[in-house]
Amino acid sequence: MKFSNRIEAIGSSPIRRLSTYADAARQRGVHVIPLNIGQPDIETPKEFYEAISDYEVSVLEYANSRGIQKTLETMQLYLHNYGLDFAIEELIITSGASEGLMFTMMALLDEGDEVLTIEPYYPNYDSFVKMVGGRLVTVHSDIADGFQMPSLEAFRSQLTPKTRAILISSPGNPTGRVYRKEEIERLVQLALEEDLFIIADEVYREFNYTDRPFYSFGDYPEIQDRVILIDSISKKYSACGARIGSIASKNQAFIAHVLKLCQARLSVSTLDQIGAGAMDLVDDQFVYDNREIYQRRRNVLNRRLKTMEGMVTNEAEGAFYTIVSLPVDDAERFIIWMMENITVDGYTVLATPAESFYTDSQYGKQQIRLSYCVEEGMIERAMDILEAALAAYPHKVLS
Amino acid sequence: MKFSNRIEAIGSSPIRRLSTYADAARQRGVHVIPLNIGQPDIETPKEFYEAISDYEVSVLEYANSRGIQKTLETMQLYLHNYGLDFAIEELIITSGASEGLMFTMMALLDEGDEVLTIEPYYPNYDSFVKMVGGRLVTVHSDIADGFQMPSLEAFRSQLTPKTRAILISSPGNPTGRVYRKEEIERLVQLALEEDLFIIADEVYREFNYTDRPFYSFGDYPEIQDRVILIDSISKKYSACGARIGSIASKNQAFIAHVLKLCQARLSVSTLDQIGAGAMDLVDDQFVYDNREIYQRRRNVLNRRLKTMEGMVTNEAEGAFYTIVSLPVDDAERFIIWMMENITVDGYTVLATPAESFYTDSQYGKQQIRLSYCVEEGMIERAMDILEAALAAYPHKVLS
Repeated sequence: MKFSNRIEAIGSSPIRRLSTYADAARQRGVHVIPLNIGQPDIETPKEFYEAISDYEVSVLEYANSRGIQKTLETMQLYLHNYGLDFAIEELIITSGASEGLMFTMMALLDEGDEVLTIEPYYPNYDSFVKMVGGRLVTVHSDIADGFQMPSLEAFRSQLTPKTRAILISSPGNPTGRVYRKEEIERLVQLALEEDLFIIADEVYREFNYTDRPFYSFGDYPEIQDRVILIDSISKKYSACGARIGSIASKNQAFIAHVLKLCQARLSVSTLDQIGAGAMDLVDDQFVYDNREIYQRRRNVLNRRLKTMEGMVTNEAEGAFYTIVSLPVDDAERFIIWMMENITVDGYTVLATPAESFYTDSQYGKQQIRLSYCVEEGMIERAMDILEAALAAYPHKVLS
Repeated sequence: MKFSNRIEAIGSSPIRRLSTYADAARQRGVHVIPLNIGQPDIETPKEFYEAISDYEVSVLEYANSRGIQKTLETMQLYLHNYGLDFAIEELIITSGASEGLMFTMMALLDEGDEVLTIEPYYPNYDSFVKMVGGRLVTVHSDIADGFQMPSLEAFRSQLTPKTRAILISSPGNPTGRVYRKEEIERLVQLALEEDLFIIADEVYREFNYTDRPFYSFGDYPEIQDRVILIDSISKKYSACGARIGSIASKNQAFIAHVLKLCQARLSVSTLDQIGAGAMDLVDDQFVYDNREIYQRRRNVLNRRLKTMEGMVTNEAEGAFYTIVSLPVDDAERFIIWMMENITVDGYTVLATPAESFYTDSQYGKQQIRLSYCVEEGMIERAMDILEAALAAYPHKVLS
């Protein structure tokens, strides 16, 4: 039986590939510190659970395809508080940011159409584009200069008549980069000049540890007809298991097109929407406290990484991630070796090799992504393990 | 800004088009009996809600991409009780049957590839196929003979080198047809001869009101490498708002491919999965009682429809639906006219015009789909309204 070319082209998750080694370590009684995923460990606000237990409806019905009115209003208010004003008709609730990205690709891309993104990139971007037969085209950003946004010329050199959109994550997964105002404005100019949509994945909006403000693509009225804002409650409200995201756009035709896809899939989880609709009751302090917690973790991580010999570090500025380049022959081989050979106090560390974040995997050969969704003490311990592993690893490459 | 050809080709839901007229009726203080949708009115089992309120986990985490183990086991047991045996590795939990169908199309179809289905068909099938640039090709079944399955020759005449799969719903939405053994086996033969996948949408498996057994495509070992069973808890457990469906297939490569798509969208709602995982606690009596309730409603509907002058009826055998042909010029025009002009005891009726269930809309021009997810008394009232409307409608066409 034959499968589609599109599905043959989609790779399996690098996170999954390594999970078998983590499972093996656990079977030997070793604890595995999960610096490989962005799964917050902060408690989900009680308002989420309370709204669900207060929802006493005997028949669990389909919700409206666009979203439950209260959930849409809560999203509207959330965005308004960031100065991003949208009418309800300009919003759609999606099953996580993932569905928002998938539907956006369906609405914009035909077979062979291209989306520009900056590498290193979140590998599921590649899957979402390939799901519809499109092609993700990358512009390189480099660890050596802290993953600065590439120049306009670099973007222009990758344009073809098939380029339809720019897809960008800020605060960035996997880099942790929070783009500067002038970097954001570079893409505003490009989108205007080249008639491109901007798909702005801003799910980490709250997690900016710099003293610069966060700039959203929604802040620029001149491109409002071509900006698609993707959000999610997963990270900001520590509610990944509630598959609630949203699309916001002032391009009415785009919203109308996506709504057809929403109608085909009928609705998003009613209970999750009820919980998400109550997030307007969560005190702002929750978000501030959260940011502070992650900022402190980030500080521990940055401090420790900088002292390690032969390590190229990148100041983690936002989100839950950073990328570092290790003085090793092959980062994936090193991670597996570490899980098999190195423990401190009965713990080892799982990280994500960065190869699949690059079109040319050579760029990521020595790099890993570290997330910091565990307590500070655990980050210290993870850094002890990483340091010990680097000291003992037999295939070191010092430049 | 330009959109994809695929999205331009996807139609908006006919249900939505008529909802503005229903809203207008409601604003005039008229109650609208919803015979337009398959939204069960039966109470969702308390076991679903109890499992969720017992789930005391402070951080709502991502679930496994394939599904929560307990939810998979519950689905496995459910299928086993129908004589359909699958290993956990042959199952995937999806966000409703809708996601299962969407991911199946992604895994099987490239641009221009074709899926065969029988018309009248569930219109979202067309959307799922178009989402990936495919083409839904139909073989006609006719109201005159109760929507019998078309002959092998009729199927063969629609085959092209691009035909990849047969998509079929039994008990059927929108026809209510429960295919006979020999009809199912006709497609088994075709799938073998022509090397086609069978995508079997069996979400109405419980709702068979005939005295014949229900035949599943999972019952035929000779095609087990090419059968994809699509399920959902929405209808059988009256839980449409919990977006929980499943894919079952013994084709390991297919499951592995779909799992890559699942990894890209991360996970299905954790709470909905917790609720669905408890459905093994629901007494079988719930399902029997449910079937009996719908069967009685079906009987009322059939009895009343048969007495109406000029009406071509079709014995509703299963699911929640039937299609009838009305002695009118245009069924959509008639439904709108009915909502604007006819009330009985302050009620009017909303039904779905059948045009969009056919490739050649002329076939459905006089037809409507009626669902029966309301109480018997309400069905009687709806039939009174329909009868009165047919008597008074100024554009009748009696053959």
